[in-house]
Amino acid sequence: VNKFVLNLITEWRRLELPFAGETIVVAVSGGADSLALLLALDELRERKKLDLRIVAAHFNHKLRGRESDADEDFVKDLAAERSFELAVGHGNIPKEGNLEQNARNARYEFLLSTAKNLNAGHVLTAHTMNDQAETFLLNLIRGSGLDGLAGMRTVREFRSGGVVENEGETAQLVLPLQQSSRIDSETPSLPHSSTPPLLTRPLLRWAKREDTENYCREMGVEFRYDTMNEDMSFKRVRVRKMLLPMLKEFNPKIVETLAKTAELMAEQLGTPSPTGPDDGRQMPKELSIQELSRLEPPQLRQTLRSWLGQHRGGLRSVGLKHIRAIEQLAFSTKSGRVAELPGFGRVRRSNGRLSFENIKVDK
Amino acid sequence: VNKFVLNLITEWRRLELPFAGETIVVAVSGGADSLALLLALDELRERKKLDLRIVAAHFNHKLRGRESDADEDFVKDLAAERSFELAVGHGNIPKEGNLEQNARNARYEFLLSTAKNLNAGHVLTAHTMNDQAETFLLNLIRGSGLDGLAGMRTVREFRSGGVVENEGETAQLVLPLQQSSRIDSETPSLPHSSTPPLLTRPLLRWAKREDTENYCREMGVEFRYDTMNEDMSFKRVRVRKMLLPMLKEFNPKIVETLAKTAELMAEQLGTPSPTGPDDGRQMPKELSIQELSRLEPPQLRQTLRSWLGQHRGGLRSVGLKHIRAIEQLAFSTKSGRVAELPGFGRVRRSNGRLSFENIKVDK
Repeated sequence: VNKFVLNLITEWRRLELPFAGETIVVAVSGGADSLALLLALDELRERKKLDLRIVAAHFNHKLRGRESDADEDFVKDLAAERSFELAVGHGNIPKEGNLEQNARNARYEFLLSTAKNLNAGHVLTAHTMNDQAETFLLNLIRGSGLDGLAGMRTVREFRSGGVVENEGETAQLVLPLQQSSRIDSETPSLPHSSTPPLLTRPLLRWAKREDTENYCREMGVEFRYDTMNEDMSFKRVRVRKMLLPMLKEFNPKIVETLAKTAELMAEQLGTPSPTGPDDGRQMPKELSIQELSRLEPPQLRQTLRSWLGQHRGGLRSVGLKHIRAIEQLAFSTKSGRVAELPGFGRVRRSNGRLSFENIKVDK
Repeated sequence: VNKFVLNLITEWRRLELPFAGETIVVAVSGGADSLALLLALDELRERKKLDLRIVAAHFNHKLRGRESDADEDFVKDLAAERSFELAVGHGNIPKEGNLEQNARNARYEFLLSTAKNLNAGHVLTAHTMNDQAETFLLNLIRGSGLDGLAGMRTVREFRSGGVVENEGETAQLVLPLQQSSRIDSETPSLPHSSTPPLLTRPLLRWAKREDTENYCREMGVEFRYDTMNEDMSFKRVRVRKMLLPMLKEFNPKIVETLAKTAELMAEQLGTPSPTGPDDGRQMPKELSIQELSRLEPPQLRQTLRSWLGQHRGGLRSVGLKHIRAIEQLAFSTKSGRVAELPGFGRVRRSNGRLSFENIKVDK
């Protein structure tokens, strides 16, 4: 068996992914990474190592005109050739704001709805150590704090981001095996699982981009190149094409080193709570400053985040500087009696306690 | 008062450095950073904000021939002009191994012995945010793990490193105020403090290199340039002159961002124990694997390090991969019964327990 396939099945076991009787969705762009993942899963299925319903999911962002459509055709042809089930979504990506972010949100919404329609417990994406190293550097450069240095997680719960309203998206589901039957009408009687699917990245910890490309070549399968990967107006492309090559002059194994560092960071921080910054502790309505003063800075910040998250109903737009402002409010004699939060809400100090006031702050 | 001096006194308070009645040693190379620190302390002393005995300490590494001696003369002249006490050491740096590391060890040994001779509780070095950003990147690139990402600590206990035998060093102490009296003969009756001095970096959290240069210029004081700072055969110089400029194109505040990230990392990891990896817990002779299995990875590793440090008498040459090998020994059914450590010693698993064997491993 090919080394790539062996590594995949080893990681599959470690991640406790299912071996039989379930449906998984595999995000496929047509590039080397996602094709390698799909082909390796196909090989494992043929060798009877896996007995799963594997559905490829391709999202056409419609951002590169004929090139986007050619990618879609390419994936459709491959699915037909290899007898893969395929779900295809078409995006109407909002042009306002961060285009990459909007495209990602639309794609993830499509993957989530596909998984829900299929009652799939897992969505796999083919991010590699290279993607992890790039994400680490991008987060480091923008000063994202320690959580950003943990990079992408190998497994996380897959929820609707809610960042972008994605009304323009239409999910066109193509199933070569059951031609033109829509998945959501195919399984109408099955109750949807109440637990959200997991987003899992089974290549993240061990595969490099050259591994996926080599495996595709060995399998005699062409892969698509995304011309956006050459567009130096994207920070990620500049990190890949300028920064990483310079770092490689210092350390030829820089990709592995950065990916490993992200993994250590994720271990250090622990698994992020599925419900977000609210870590499940029931927080009191008011916090005693005396009790807060006994906490070490990381615990203090975590407590303030949890408390705010619960009483404010989320931490949207609340950054480290706001948490620090609340620390100052609590412990500095020079600060005022109120710390205002972005968007809405404020924290008040009185009688040695902090309380949250859920009002809209006038500008 | 100058902003640089204001920032220094603010940090001085935060670090709980002494204001009167004590002796502090200030490491002075002759470059902008250390001169700015010394001049700012002089200003604070003249303004009666500080009432301390301030002794400048210059170590001539003798690595750059006449340039090194010119640096020494420059610092001597400045000390005479400004009526600073000055201690000068001359180094005989071993040429084998890492020259930068050897030079640093010799310098730190000199600073430590100077502080001990003077009964000084604090040695100050003038490392800036730029040094911190460079250290962070160097550690990141070489894959030092999370501790390296905490960078230099603002305060640490100052012990003899013991890494390099530094027999060639001769400390020639020059005291302009008490000409040619040697400090160690000057204070023979004072018992040396039993607590080691603290190494404190009062510029690390807020000053940039341009701040120290600007302050020197404002004070009308020339500073020395070290030609080694231009030598691209040093990794640190390449980080400063090639990598940081590229990162600056992504984020103009990259130095501040990296220094802040190091600070967050140091907070997350907690203060390193003064006694090193041994965190003060009395560790049992043997460790129960069942009890180890209840720990989260970071705590597990910390426990293994503490245990090894205590029973092996230090963690010299023990890296993450050796700690991981011990984890494997404990938890993997496939591993053998012994994990060997670099240099000497090994860990044995038997009857569900780990024990340390203090023997030299045959190669």
